[in-house]
Amino acid sequence: MSVKRFGVSIDQGLVDKFDRLISKKGYSNRSEALRDLIRDSLVDEAWQNTETAAVGVVTVVYNHEQKELSHRLMHLQHHFENVIVSTLHVHLDEHNCLEAVVLKGKSGEIQKVADLLISAKGVKHGKLVATTTGKALA
Amino acid sequence: MSVKRFGVSIDQGLVDKFDRLISKKGYSNRSEALRDLIRDSLVDEAWQNTETAAVGVVTVVYNHEQKELSHRLMHLQHHFENVIVSTLHVHLDEHNCLEAVVLKGKSGEIQKVADLLISAKGVKHGKLVATTTGKALA
Amino acid sequence: MSVKRFGVSIDQGLVDKFDRLISKKGYSNRSEALRDLIRDSLVDEAWQNTETAAVGVVTVVYNHEQKELSHRLMHLQHHFENVIVSTLHVHLDEHNCLEAVVLKGKSGEIQKVADLLISAKGVKHGKLVATTTGKALA
Amino acid sequence: MSVKRFGVSIDQGLVDKFDRLISKKGYSNRSEALRDLIRDSLVDEAWQNTETAAVGVVTVVYNHEQKELSHRLMHLQHHFENVIVSTLHVHLDEHNCLEAVVLKGKSGEIQKVADLLISAKGVKHGKLVATTTGKALA
Repeated sequence: MSVKRFGVSIDQGLVDKFDRLISKKGYSNRSEALRDLIRDSLVDEAWQNTETAAVGVVTVVYNHEQKELSHRLMHLQHHFENVIVSTLHVHLDEHNCLEAVVLKGKSGEIQKVADLLISAKGVKHGKLVATTTGKALA
Repeated sequence: MSVKRFGVSIDQGLVDKFDRLISKKGYSNRSEALRDLIRDSLVDEAWQNTETAAVGVVTVVYNHEQKELSHRLMHLQHHFENVIVSTLHVHLDEHNCLEAVVLKGKSGEIQKVADLLISAKGVKHGKLVATTTGKALA
Repeated sequence: MSVKRFGVSIDQGLVDKFDRLISKKGYSNRSEALRDLIRDSLVDEAWQNTETAAVGVVTVVYNHEQKELSHRLMHLQHHFENVIVSTLHVHLDEHNCLEAVVLKGKSGEIQKVADLLISAKGVKHGKLVATTTGKALA
Repeated sequence: MSVKRFGVSIDQGLVDKFDRLISKKGYSNRSEALRDLIRDSLVDEAWQNTETAAVGVVTVVYNHEQKELSHRLMHLQHHFENVIVSTLHVHLDEHNCLEAVVLKGKSGEIQKVADLLISAKGVKHGKLVATTTGKALA
């Protein structure tokens, strides 16, 4: 894909502060940091439309000794197998597990399945990350 | 203040999408939109330190017929008059009021006063906007 | 309006931690803190529909010496006077001003006007707080 | 663990709206929905201290054909193996991959590693979810 090079004008003081911030965060140069800010604003925008082709990651933390819950999460994930791609299960300690569930589909559907996973009785904490298929982001 | 002009390299497809987004939002050019993304990330960063000289706006919505609440909000605002700069009171309808309270001080103090205003019994909804004195942002 | 009293069952450890958090934030009791969490989730939900009757507060920080900008902000506010209720202007220092602009209308319109105010050339930082008319929140 | 049952008083209209929202989200009862709101506010609070024992999930989307990037992400993950627990790799399409990286450690360290992963040259979109070991949440 072609790369466009263009000039931007920004006050010196602002550039200096931005340079310090991005070096702290580990960016190799300004273009890369600005690309990330741009992509972030595009992903936010895309998720405002529930029909957008999107990707999400739902994180849930729960106690695996609650047998009904493990079963319910498993059941939900199979029921929505057209949206759910894959799941990573991590043992946090003797009692607690984390699952990171990757979903791909329309953003509205992802939100719906995320709500069901997060609201399942016994889930201690749950969050949805709204991200992208990467296709629309060069 | 001096303005720095520098080049950035961004894939054509990404630039096209960003141009559409910023024109929808009303930006006059890319530099202005990028400056806003940069400043936003700097303000976020600054607020992570509770000692930062900062500015905040607390919005509270409440029913003014609750006399005790009006009194409590007034009292709190006077008690913290070293942090609270000014307040705008708007009559939303026959019963409901909105107050936008501007605060200036260390970000940790602003957060504390915001918590007290938002938690006051009878406040229906409250939010703190973390912003900046503008001094550090060119 | 009638008040409903109902019981909730929450693990002791969680209640203890919540009690500490809400006392730090200044809540007088659990019901008040829970009401705020509930209202917050309802306001979030309501703003997902662009047709919701809503209220917003836009905060902008800018350098008032930029005459064109003051003029543009004034012009925008008058152009959208059917949505804009009132504005508080605060002098932050010799150069910097803050305006808190209260808007009332459909959430989609509020968002649009907020985008135009925040994107105005010269605005250093801007944020929209999505809140409520209070009518739908007991 | 012992369960505490206590009463809360909330206006009827607010309860009705909350009941509709939580049924839409899939909660089985009010206590479960309130527990989630409570835990969410506790996790937010905990992450304000960079020394908190915490768990995070970093999501990155990137084009796997960028060999250097795959290598860099792998290298970073091994370098921080004391914080990084496990990684799920998903093939989104012919070009794009998603990795969900689970981290466990002090919240300040998790944030640092997340910054490095997200800022790696070629990552199209990245986000950190701040969650919990579950231990402190009943």
